Amino acid sequence: MTIQEIPAKNLDTRKFIDDQVNSIKEAVGPNLAINALSGGVDSSTVTMIGHKALGDQLKTYFINNGLMREGEPEHVVSLFRDLGVPVQLVDARAEFLGALKGIRDPEEKREAITQTFYKQVFRRLVLECGAKHLLQGTILTDVDETVAGIKRQHNVFEQLGINPEEAFGYRILEPLVQLRKDGVRKVAEALGLPASVYGRMPFPGPALSARVIGEATPERIALVRKATAITEEMLASSGAFQYMAILHEDRVTGMRDGKRDFGFQIEIRCWDSHDARRAFPTRLAWETLEDLSLRILDGVPGVVSVTYNIAPKPPSTMEAV
Amino acid sequence: MTIQEIPAKNLDTRKFIDDQVNSIKEAVGPNLAINALSGGVDSSTVTMIGHKALGDQLKTYFINNGLMREGEPEHVVSLFRDLGVPVQLVDARAEFLGALKGIRDPEEKREAITQTFYKQVFRRLVLECGAKHLLQGTILTDVDETVAGIKRQHNVFEQLGINPEEAFGYRILEPLVQLRKDGVRKVAEALGLPASVYGRMPFPGPALSARVIGEATPERIALVRKATAITEEMLASSGAFQYMAILHEDRVTGMRDGKRDFGFQIEIRCWDSHDARRAFPTRLAWETLEDLSLRILDGVPGVVSVTYNIAPKPPSTMEAV
Repeated sequence: MTIQEIPAKNLDTRKFIDDQVNSIKEAVGPNLAINALSGGVDSSTVTMIGHKALGDQLKTYFINNGLMREGEPEHVVSLFRDLGVPVQLVDARAEFLGALKGIRDPEEKREAITQTFYKQVFRRLVLECGAKHLLQGTILTDVDETVAGIKRQHNVFEQLGINPEEAFGYRILEPLVQLRKDGVRKVAEALGLPASVYGRMPFPGPALSARVIGEATPERIALVRKATAITEEMLASSGAFQYMAILHEDRVTGMRDGKRDFGFQIEIRCWDSHDARRAFPTRLAWETLEDLSLRILDGVPGVVSVTYNIAPKPPSTMEAV
Repeated sequence: MTIQEIPAKNLDTRKFIDDQVNSIKEAVGPNLAINALSGGVDSSTVTMIGHKALGDQLKTYFINNGLMREGEPEHVVSLFRDLGVPVQLVDARAEFLGALKGIRDPEEKREAITQTFYKQVFRRLVLECGAKHLLQGTILTDVDETVAGIKRQHNVFEQLGINPEEAFGYRILEPLVQLRKDGVRKVAEALGLPASVYGRMPFPGPALSARVIGEATPERIALVRKATAITEEMLASSGAFQYMAILHEDRVTGMRDGKRDFGFQIEIRCWDSHDARRAFPTRLAWETLEDLSLRILDGVPGVVSVTYNIAPKPPSTMEAV
């Protein structure tokens, strides 16, 4: 079946929301539904639409995988609480960080996170809560990329290790599947979500593990989390498309208390882009670069060197890992 | 014995050169002397003074260790030939690159180069040519740093594995030992050496192996040699104290022909400094940074990412390795 795209410029957000709320109500009936909220614009929008349709019949979970930014789990949960949407915070840090132990290869890190999410944590929540309807924030771009072989096949049942025929009644609902990112942002705004959600900067699925070259140990995640907090605070006013701090695995020479010291290096990337297909390093003011470097050297233990990316995409990519 | 420093401001270069020429003549008499020329300001100055004193009695060798910059060995030899000083080019690339094989630690790389130089290549030349006088470009700062424990003890005989008491008659001559770098530059200029020598930017002893994080394989040296040539050409007019390209060991994601590709990253450092004790990243124009990045991405195979250092020394150091 071909999916009928709704381009953002033709989108009647009121009507779209009403239509999706009605379809969800009809599909779920008197039963329970479940969804996982990451705080990104897609899953936040699904959570709001699902809650409008189902109220207490929707169980929304925020899974803390230990790879989130500073204060992110608490921030997302309290933001939705203030909007009247209850979200249950699940502490799965030990499971994810355990699964990442000893893994240095970027693809294997991604795989470990996906497997832990679907096969362990989310599967357990689905089975425990008894919901047979899963709300997913799939958008049309995800479908395209799956078809093109860029993204993994999003057959969620297979990911969960649930055979929907054997376990009769399981159903996936994808209310955003006719939209692209710009459409989702309009719907999110119409739903009353704040600009910090509907205008949110892209953030990778594997979260801070994608901001660490090499093994994502708890110590290295904590380190890049500090650098990320400083970078995001300092570059919030830059107007850039996306900015990030990356912890390198290479050690470089530095001086601490007059002694040679092999220390860490943090790379900053800050991108100008319209659609993420091509991107250019933002021409930040030298004062900003210098302040940023000093704050990172001062605030992140063991860091002796900071660099700024000057290569465009392509041949670079936005993320390093 | 305390060495009597001659500060650059009190230096009478004519008199200094005459005094050193006379001492060398007197010390060497009718015999042969040997020295190794690297093309740096110290060894170039010693070569000129030694040649003034001894003419054909001085055997000067340029040892190509395979870690030199593009065209450097040929350039240095022809520069001295044009000044009337014969220099013998020794191809020792296989020995040095062989000694570096499998070594990733910076200290061990340095040690492998030092050992190969003294215990193998230079020792063989000393013994073969029959010279018992060695001219060395030691300056006062080297002596200070040896005393302070920053540099290794420069007991050259020990380095060479020659016991001067058993092998009677061996003697080291250090004509520059009363000077610091600024004094040596004045003497070099007075000797008629070109600005490319007396004003030469600092370059590390371990040469390009210090510009590679991790193992210095022939392939990785060739790669950083290309990046160095581009960087030195483009930043020659910057007026900076020192600039360099560093090949990282970390691989980062890039795109080549529409496909994901883990590629290399080159870091550029360009320093403003007076005395190398403190240094700050040069505030290069964005156009320069962008041109430099594009030329490296285009000209150095496998490179998908270029960064620019934004951290000051301290806590950084000038060199990364």
